[in-house]
Parts: sequence; C-alpha cells; structure tokens
Amino acid sequence: MVLRALAINCSLKSDPNEASSSDTMIAVLEKAFAEREVFLTETVRVASLNIMPGVTSDEGKGDDWPALRDKILDHDILVFGGPIWMGQIGSVAKRVLERMDAFLDETDKAGRMPSYGKVAVAAIVGNEDGAHFSCAQLFQALNDVGWTIPAVAACYWVGEAMGSTDFKDLEKTPEIVSKTADMVAGNAAHLARLLKSAPYPDDA
Amino acid sequence: MVLRALAINCSLKSDPNEASSSDTMIAVLEKAFAEREVFLTETVRVASLNIMPGVTSDEGKGDDWPALRDKILDHDILVFGGPIWMGQIGSVAKRVLERMDAFLDETDKAGRMPSYGKVAVAAIVGNEDGAHFSCAQLFQALNDVGWTIPAVAACYWVGEAMGSTDFKDLEKTPEIVSKTADMVAGNAAHLARLLKSAPYPDDA
Amino acid sequence: MVLRALAINCSLKSDPNEASSSDTMIAVLEKAFAEREVFLTETVRVASLNIMPGVTSDEGKGDDWPALRDKILDHDILVFGGPIWMGQIGSVAKRVLERMDAFLDETDKAGRMPSYGKVAVAAIVGNEDGAHFSCAQLFQALNDVGWTIPAVAACYWVGEAMGSTDFKDLEKTPEIVSKTADMVAGNAAHLARLLKSAPYPDDA
Amino acid sequence: MVLRALAINCSLKSDPNEASSSDTMIAVLEKAFAEREVFLTETVRVASLNIMPGVTSDEGKGDDWPALRDKILDHDILVFGGPIWMGQIGSVAKRVLERMDAFLDETDKAGRMPSYGKVAVAAIVGNEDGAHFSCAQLFQALNDVGWTIPAVAACYWVGEAMGSTDFKDLEKTPEIVSKTADMVAGNAAHLARLLKSAPYPDDA
Repeated sequence: MVLRALAINCSLKSDPNEASSSDTMIAVLEKAFAEREVFLTETVRVASLNIMPGVTSDEGKGDDWPALRDKILDHDILVFGGPIWMGQIGSVAKRVLERMDAFLDETDKAGRMPSYGKVAVAAIVGNEDGAHFSCAQLFQALNDVGWTIPAVAACYWVGEAMGSTDFKDLEKTPEIVSKTADMVAGNAAHLARLLKSAPYPDDA
Repeated sequence: MVLRALAINCSLKSDPNEASSSDTMIAVLEKAFAEREVFLTETVRVASLNIMPGVTSDEGKGDDWPALRDKILDHDILVFGGPIWMGQIGSVAKRVLERMDAFLDETDKAGRMPSYGKVAVAAIVGNEDGAHFSCAQLFQALNDVGWTIPAVAACYWVGEAMGSTDFKDLEKTPEIVSKTADMVAGNAAHLARLLKSAPYPDDA
Repeated sequence: MVLRALAINCSLKSDPNEASSSDTMIAVLEKAFAEREVFLTETVRVASLNIMPGVTSDEGKGDDWPALRDKILDHDILVFGGPIWMGQIGSVAKRVLERMDAFLDETDKAGRMPSYGKVAVAAIVGNEDGAHFSCAQLFQALNDVGWTIPAVAACYWVGEAMGSTDFKDLEKTPEIVSKTADMVAGNAAHLARLLKSAPYPDDA
Repeated sequence: MVLRALAINCSLKSDPNEASSSDTMIAVLEKAFAEREVFLTETVRVASLNIMPGVTSDEGKGDDWPALRDKILDHDILVFGGPIWMGQIGSVAKRVLERMDAFLDETDKAGRMPSYGKVAVAAIVGNEDGAHFSCAQLFQALNDVGWTIPAVAACYWVGEAMGSTDFKDLEKTPEIVSKTADMVAGNAAHLARLLKSAPYPDDA
C-alpha cells in the first residue's frame, strides 16, 4: 500500500527559497520514507502563508489555514518540521497546533476527530538544546487532537550547548541522524498502513 | 483478541492500601478497557517497591525494577498512572521513566526495543493544574524509548486553579472523564490489537 | 519610588475591544500593583499588531516589534499575560518571546542584556489545565534572555479539567486569585525597586 | 557582604565519591561564586541520602529531608545541580522539588515562605539535549514555592544530538560555559545580597 506524507516546515523564514535546516531534516526523512513506499508530496513553508491566530478551522477572509488544513488531512502521515527557538518549538509551529484545536469539535458520529487514523512525526532542528522540550510540546498537543504517535517519532539534530552551527551547514548528515530517520520512517509507515486498513472503531 | 493491560500507580504514598486518586482514575479506565476485552491484571503501587535510581535494567541487590520491568513487558498495554505535584508529573513516575532508558540499548537484531508494539496511555490526577505538562513529559519520554501513543491517550482530572479537592473524593465521576476514558480505552485497545497482530517490521 | 509596569495581552483575538480573560486577569494584577505604587500604564493587545516572525529586533517594513520592544524596555516590570491553548502558552506569546532572543546579542560593554534589572511576571488564563506548563515555558524563556523572576511570579486561573468557563465570565474573582495577585505584585514591586536602585553589576 | 551557597547534586549515582558531571559543573560555578565572595560550603549528593517520597517537611523515621531542608534554608543561594535523563531533569531532582511543596503551608505571619529572599540557580549536564526542558521544570517549580530566579540563572552543558560524551570527561571547560558561569554567579550574588539586605515585605 503506497502512502502519502505531507511535510510542514515551521521555519520563521517566510521565503520558501531561503535555505532552512528544517527542510534539510525533512529531506533526510523524505528519503527514508521513500524507501518504504511513502511519498512526501510537498513541503509547505508555513510562514509563507497567512495562518491567522484563532482556534476555529476558518478565521475568515485571508486565512490560509482552511487550505492547509485540507491538505494535511488529505495525507496519511504528517511530518511536523520546525526549528527550536529559546529551547522550545517556535511560534509558527505553535500557531499550526492551535488551529488544530478545532478538531475537538469536528468529530464524526462515532466521536472520531478528522486526524484519527493519521500518524504524526517530528523533524526538529536547532543550533543547540531544545529538541526534547519541542517534542514534548508537539506530542502532547498533537495527541490531544487525535494524532497517533508511532514508536520513536522524533528525528532531530542540535549542536553542542550554546553552539551556533546550523544543521543545513553540516558537511554530511550524522550517521546517527540517518539511522534515527530510518526508525522514524519505518515505524510511521508501518503504523499508518495498519490504521489506514483498520481505522479506529466507532465505539472509541 | 483478548488483551492484557498493566497499570502502574506512581502515587507518592507507598502503602497500596492507602486510598489514592490515581487508583480511582485507573479504575475508571479499567472499566472502559474491560468493555473492549482488555483486562487490567493488576495495579502496581510503585512506591511500595524499591525502584533504585539508575538507568540500567538491573541496579543490583534490592532493586525491584527487574521484576516490574518483566511485568510491564509481559502486557500489551501500559496504563501509566500518577499524580501531579508542582504542576508536573511526580518523582516516582520520573523514576520509572528513567529506568526505561535502558531499552535504548536492548534492541533486537532488527533494532527494535522491548517496548515496540506496545501501547501506553496516561491516567493523571491532581488537585489542580498540571495534567498537560505531565502528559507532555510522559509522552515524550515514553515515545523516546519505543512506546506507541494512541490517539487521545490521556485520561485526567484536575480541579479549579489552586483547588484542593481530590479526585477520589468526588461524589461521582464527571461525565466528561468517563467519556474520555472510553475514547482512551477504545483507541488503545484497537491500536494494541493491530500492533500485536502486525509488529513493527525489522527494517524499521 | 514609583514604578511603571507594562502589560502585554497575548490573546489570539486581535481586536482590543473584544473582551479577553487575559485582560481580566491583568486588571486583577493592576489593582494589586497600584496599591504598591506601581502603575500599569497600558495593556498592549499584541495580536492587534504585526509582530513579524523572526529573531532580530527589527524584521523590516511593517514590523511592529521595534515599537513594542521600546515600550517594554521603557518600563520596570513586564506583566506577561496570555491564554492557554492546547495546555500550553499560545502562539502570540511565543512570538513575543522569540523576538526577545535578540537580547542575547544586544549586551552592553558589561555583558548586560537590555532586560537586565527588569522583572517579569505571568498572568495566565484558560478554560482548563495548562497554567504550570505555560509558566514553565515563559519563565525559562524570559530568564534566558535576562529577565529576573521574583518569588511567586505567576497569577493564573483555570477551570476544572476539560471545563469551558472563561475567567472573564466568573461572577467574582476567586479569593485565592486575588490573594495570589497580592503576592505576585508585592514581590515584583519589591524586587523591581531593588534592582532599579542597584542594577546588576558589570562584573556579571 | 559574604554570602553562603549550598550545592545539591541530584545525580542518580548515590556514592559521593563516584565522579559526576554535575559535580564538575558545580565546581565551575563554585569558582565563579568565590570570585564574588560567595562561598560554596558543601555539595550534597542527594542520592546518598534517603529523601523519602511525600510532600510534607518530615515523612518520619529514616527521612533525611528534614536535615537537608534545614541546610538548604541555612544558605543564601541554592545551586540546584543535576543530570538530564530522557531529555528532562532526573527523578532525584524531582524528589527534592516535591519536598519543597510543603513551603506553601509554612508561611510566616506575613505570608512569606521559608524560601523567600533566597536565590536559586541551575547547574545542568547531559550527554545531549534537554537542558532547557530541565530548566523550565526547575524554574517553574522553584518559583512556585518561593525561590527568586536571577537573570540568566542556568549554567549547562550538553553534547551534540544523541551524543555520549560526559561533561566531566571534556579536556577543558568550554569557554562559553565559563563565561555563562560568570554571568550566573554574578547575577545570583548581586540579587542574593539585595534580598538579604532588604527582604520581601510583609505586605506581599
């Protein structure tokens, strides 16, 4: 069963042509997913869109969330990519999470949110420290609104404490990152296939 | 397929006979699980055991972790129960998480940790605020060491800000808690069945 | 010594005339501060401004951060107000924190950031759970960029688990919230006075 | 004014003679403090004591917390040292925080907790990622129970993502760590002196 993944890059930089370490990490995962017949159709640079503040699924004129929301829900796997700032996940990522709050009220007759049966993984980068804090924020929030988190769902890189190197500027991808990407993609692909074949039941 | 769940109660109170709100919450989940043919075999009061500090699977003479570890891994689902203190998950819970750190080095030939294919959910209680912070800590740590987190994996109760009511002293279980328990148990049961039938592959 | 405090309201609602529970909490603190000769000059509704994504102090044309930054630094105390979403501090608050990242490179000859000697407190509201997680995010981030955190620096209110009541709709302010506001304001006023009289030294 | 600091090392290793990276980091801070006439009287290896689970100031026979509590409160500055495990502060540190919960009920007539007027800083080490998450946990919890957090209160070191180097095994202390230690010690010393001369008022 071929699956489709969508990546969102929650960089603070709005120009999709500006190099971003989150893109670099997403590319590492894209390769690992492709080897498992999961195709990453697109990486959305979220800051290039106008994702308005709010907690409904449509905040009105000019809001780019409805289209991004549709795109996310049209895929089997979400690769949630973004940078660490201040040791935490950045504000663009937080905005996306917040907009998913509406899922809580968008359940079907069986009480299932639109995210049910879909799998999310994290692609986190930073100059230094903050990946675990970022993942904790992502996993708790995503799980609250119906996403399933496969075993070992985080692929991340950060440099030594108070360092300033960017992931995108490394000469080569550290082997341990590639290995982790394989685990993340393998587990996510497997779990997404299971859930696509056998969705959460309506007695849930 | 009948499944088995184990609950751990990470109360700070060591006497299993002393009433604990975590036990009350676990009992709510137990009922919801039973309706889905998942049987909760036992609730372990962790503080009654000597879970020694450390990050190996056996810290030597007097360490009760090896037996608890075996018990946990002998079940399909882990109900991770415990109280909030200082707005965060308590120290007894943290101790258990820490001991699972050893899973990272206990992979099989396919790179799979002993927790792979098992599902964890949270049962969190407190007088007031702290459930989301506790879940963030639990989900990130459990996921790091191979646990899969089903959609809506947290059943919790806290009172109003700076309140002092215990969950165990409520006259009746709030309807929204029972409803959440149904979602948690339904999703966990479904996902655990899928993963038991089709474990994470060795290419992961 | 009369002091000046600035409040920022990080509500997701951009219209300053739209009622906001964060405003209600800020008003509770404003009263407590006034009794200690600390005057809250203004509450800025951050979402009504265009605070651009980025980590410099000026992201260019249309960026409202430079003016807000000046205003913040022109006061002795920052009342950082905002709502909880998904159990965490909201995206508008995160954006403000991120913009302060630039303080790290804006030190004077003595290595002091522009925030040195200033005191920050939190005013957090939510329908339910998440105040401690929000405060943890705020205090760690604010402290990283030079803010001092007085004893008991958080005034918050949340309802019972999974509740839906707004703080602004309570018939009256809970006594424990007023009492906490007194502690927060008393400690912040005292510490801000001390630091204004005797700034952090340049050997720091 | 000469001040006294106490360091607690929340390593999971109970033998104080076993080398610990937390000790190494505490030693870096000790030197920086000494240059500012703050003398670190002792480093307590917490895991060598029997700090019983609970949230009172005395959990009865065999509990070593009452003596440690007295020692902590007999100093002006607390250096809260400990390791990161699972990307978060370890369980021994959490236990210490929990025991301080009792401060909330141990106020004087003016409503001041025993920690009022005392300053806390963090000394965090890990092989990799987790320092900011650890500090967020520490600062929120310590602040809740009355500790004051000076500007830039965290001195930490972690290696590159998924690394395995220990701080104690570095050939030399990274310059940026020494520089941070100077900031932490300078700010903490200054603030502790101010608060010792002019305690939080009883109107707080």
